[in-house]
Amino acid sequence: MLPAAVIDQIKADLPEWHWQGVGQGASIMEVSHRGKAFEALINDAEQDLRDLLAIPANYSVLFMQGGAWGQFACVPMNLLRADEYAGYVVSGGWSKSASEEAAKFGEVAVLGLSEEDRYHWAPKLSTDIIEKYNKSHSRPDKLGETLWSYFYVCSNETVYGNELHTLPRDLPAPLVVDASSHFLSRAMDVSSCGLIYAGAQKNVGPAGVTIVIVRDDLLDRAPKAIPAVWHYAHMAKHKSLFNTPPVFSIYATALTLKWIKAQGGLDEMERRAVARSSMLYDAIDASKLFKAPVVKADRSRMNVVFDSPNEEIDKAFVTFCEARGLMSLKGHRVRGGMRASLYNAMPIEGVEALVAAMREFETIQSKL
Amino acid sequence: MLPAAVIDQIKADLPEWHWQGVGQGASIMEVSHRGKAFEALINDAEQDLRDLLAIPANYSVLFMQGGAWGQFACVPMNLLRADEYAGYVVSGGWSKSASEEAAKFGEVAVLGLSEEDRYHWAPKLSTDIIEKYNKSHSRPDKLGETLWSYFYVCSNETVYGNELHTLPRDLPAPLVVDASSHFLSRAMDVSSCGLIYAGAQKNVGPAGVTIVIVRDDLLDRAPKAIPAVWHYAHMAKHKSLFNTPPVFSIYATALTLKWIKAQGGLDEMERRAVARSSMLYDAIDASKLFKAPVVKADRSRMNVVFDSPNEEIDKAFVTFCEARGLMSLKGHRVRGGMRASLYNAMPIEGVEALVAAMREFETIQSKL
Repeated sequence: MLPAAVIDQIKADLPEWHWQGVGQGASIMEVSHRGKAFEALINDAEQDLRDLLAIPANYSVLFMQGGAWGQFACVPMNLLRADEYAGYVVSGGWSKSASEEAAKFGEVAVLGLSEEDRYHWAPKLSTDIIEKYNKSHSRPDKLGETLWSYFYVCSNETVYGNELHTLPRDLPAPLVVDASSHFLSRAMDVSSCGLIYAGAQKNVGPAGVTIVIVRDDLLDRAPKAIPAVWHYAHMAKHKSLFNTPPVFSIYATALTLKWIKAQGGLDEMERRAVARSSMLYDAIDASKLFKAPVVKADRSRMNVVFDSPNEEIDKAFVTFCEARGLMSLKGHRVRGGMRASLYNAMPIEGVEALVAAMREFETIQSKL
Repeated sequence: MLPAAVIDQIKADLPEWHWQGVGQGASIMEVSHRGKAFEALINDAEQDLRDLLAIPANYSVLFMQGGAWGQFACVPMNLLRADEYAGYVVSGGWSKSASEEAAKFGEVAVLGLSEEDRYHWAPKLSTDIIEKYNKSHSRPDKLGETLWSYFYVCSNETVYGNELHTLPRDLPAPLVVDASSHFLSRAMDVSSCGLIYAGAQKNVGPAGVTIVIVRDDLLDRAPKAIPAVWHYAHMAKHKSLFNTPPVFSIYATALTLKWIKAQGGLDEMERRAVARSSMLYDAIDASKLFKAPVVKADRSRMNVVFDSPNEEIDKAFVTFCEARGLMSLKGHRVRGGMRASLYNAMPIEGVEALVAAMREFETIQSKL
């Protein structure tokens, strides 16, 4: 979902893109990515992102291609050294896939896993857990050296609906965060992370661009030759314009960043996210029919997962909602149940309508 | 440049995308890539591409991310075996970069190079050249076996303006063709190639999607673990919907494919490309001021490169044209001179205006 104002602007910019009031003689899909206007746009987008997240000066902002699955490979190819470990916290399907993809390129240690509990909580990474792993895996030739290239968390798991509301700190190696599905829904302490990445398509723009925020000392760590388009140092050196970038997706992202700023920035995005998700979780917790399985401290503000007593009622409820114009409530195919995704562009009225539908459905069910 | 009809359709599909007359409740940037409508659209695009290029059934069509630079790495990662060579023909800057990128992942042999002549002709690959290389590099342990994983050509070099009008045939290993910059400007004999790829942004759609046509026996040859998003077999198995694809770029590409079909297909695209480029080359050859340096047999129909006697006159001509609304005539920064790019969507009137400007400029110059 994109803000209506962004869609309107995209429409107004066809057939001719206007940059700061000046017509560019062609649409955004046709202008050169080496032209002055697009260069100004991508610089502007980077600055807006820096303003919104208070990104420190020693971090680079990259606009890449390949989505989160691309970064699942790109991160270990750039950062995972021979004879070291990458420490993964597996809190859902995405971090599980990320850890499996990383294992193609080096040694992976799983430092937290809640799969047995259907990922209904998010494991927390701590120096204690790491210390314990160090002791049980110490190698005489590495004594006194860190075993770790980086640690990895997915800070919002869309399928199971858990979210890390606090990032781990003071780790003995850089923290890598897949923030794809709650990026820009609240402030983040960038300085506590080595690298944060996010596919644009949840809160920031249309699919096709991946934002990577990376501390400069991590740019050029690739232990061997890797593809140029996936080499952080190479992309940073060329300010993401080394090869043809996904121009349209970056343009739409730039418009969305302006929209977020105009709405009041990340504090306002967080206020809205809390308002939307609290309203829905409160309604679920008050219901006798529906249950939210994720522990309260780890509940996602973006993806509210809930269940009825059985699959049949799940299905009936999804159909009941669709008839009221409330779409996309079916849970992910690997999990089932229901899921309401409440990204930045979702107005509170959408949640109010869903809560009303839940109550109505429950009343009908109770009379059956 | 995209056809005006495609831009109009994109505009009409905002704020709500209609697929076959049915409103989808959201824009193309917001619908799920797992929804029925987008699945139908991508299948349709594949079928249109198969129809246009007469792609045989034993070839897969993939919609990937990363552009040509992505494929520079993706091709050797998937196809270059240990103890074998990849044979590259270097006919310009793109194939040179491709050969250098491939050398990161295995052994590369350059089988043709016209750099000394500023790439003013395109080297031809033949079994004789390959045989000669085989003899001078034969290894006792490999006698009787092919040394080659694949051969590689860039069939249109945009910067230096040369084009391979005939692809090499009957090679002892699969031929890989980077057809990015003249893709769908004419028919191609897909069956003589192992793999053809093209970044969309020249003739097919906006930047952000890369089309890969690959013979099925080459899908699963990766000699070791490679990124899932870059593994041809993996992408083919999931019909390009393994991870979130660049939805908007694929949609715009699908519209452009329909446009090409409606115009009369690749025969008509070729007729127009011949008409446009002949008109311009004829004017250059008839001129006393301008010269086209590429040998006639290898001249590109897409990128017409030409020079005046010196840089100063080049610059004056580019400025003269800009004042007449004729943009983007400056040659690529690594080459200089002039370049007119005449992609599918360029109307013949654009060439007529350029030819008129050339004549007028030449007359003024001759009086100085």
